[in-house]
Amino acid sequence: MAATAAQLCDVGYLNMTIEGVAARAGVGKSTIYRWWPSKAALVVETLKSRSMLSPIELTGDSRADLRAVIASTFQIVTHSPAGMILPALAVDLIRDPAAHEQLHALLRPRRESVLTVIRTIAARGDLPADVDAGLLLDIYSGTLLYRVLLSGEPVTESIIDQLTDLLLSGTAPHILLML
Amino acid sequence: MAATAAQLCDVGYLNMTIEGVAARAGVGKSTIYRWWPSKAALVVETLKSRSMLSPIELTGDSRADLRAVIASTFQIVTHSPAGMILPALAVDLIRDPAAHEQLHALLRPRRESVLTVIRTIAARGDLPADVDAGLLLDIYSGTLLYRVLLSGEPVTESIIDQLTDLLLSGTAPHILLML
Repeated sequence: MAATAAQLCDVGYLNMTIEGVAARAGVGKSTIYRWWPSKAALVVETLKSRSMLSPIELTGDSRADLRAVIASTFQIVTHSPAGMILPALAVDLIRDPAAHEQLHALLRPRRESVLTVIRTIAARGDLPADVDAGLLLDIYSGTLLYRVLLSGEPVTESIIDQLTDLLLSGTAPHILLML
Repeated sequence: MAATAAQLCDVGYLNMTIEGVAARAGVGKSTIYRWWPSKAALVVETLKSRSMLSPIELTGDSRADLRAVIASTFQIVTHSPAGMILPALAVDLIRDPAAHEQLHALLRPRRESVLTVIRTIAARGDLPADVDAGLLLDIYSGTLLYRVLLSGEPVTESIIDQLTDLLLSGTAPHILLML
């Protein structure tokens, strides 16, 4: 597991090989295949074994709470190796529903704790009572991931505020003047 | 190029190999490597040679126009092979800035035409005059991609309306009752 994590950090998911992990761990390839059927399975279990995120602490201020949740995803997408491992893994698993389900299971605890934050904000009356918390999570997570992967535009922390304002107050994203 | 496109449709980006394309085209691997240095380069050029999208026609109704743009991305992400090829390619290219720039160049014409639609809607007064059109595009595109790749929740057309309402009217996403 430690060898897998180290290889992921060094070469990324797509370039990682079972051979590389085996060499790093000082074991034969067959030892690894005895326990994990595929690279994807090995990586899912490695990610599972490492708690990637600190728990979310509520402040009581809805804007601050939602902003903190979005800022934490911003950190993962822009700074943590997991930020790029997860989409690579998801694309790799798209033709393998069982493994894809494992990936969702891996992400579920984090997802559930964020959904609880969103529902708490709704219970305070700062989001609609019938808020679709899952979609709200997908909106800010997807935006951050897309900006890094595909949009080609600069990734700056101002996006965190723009997303918070859109989701909490319905403020459309607008051009920020840099002073 | 035709062989590459056919292989992409059959096996996906990650499982596609230069060998497979060469076999399909009835040429040697070295012939392919003479023209394209890598799988990523070959795929970028294949995508470039195929116009993936029909032009956007404006109706004059801002809600209908924004909804049509979002619905078109929904179709790509859920039904077209390019929907999953692009993120796989983007992840593969993240360590290769020159190739990543090529990918952005490939996406730019489509991106520009959508930005024009968003700015037209703003000019009509239906979005703020200082709308950040690029971020708006990233929000709905990212949400759709994330929902398919990572969220594990059902992908239904109702998301198109939820995103349209959020971006145009500031309506937070809410649970839809299925009747």
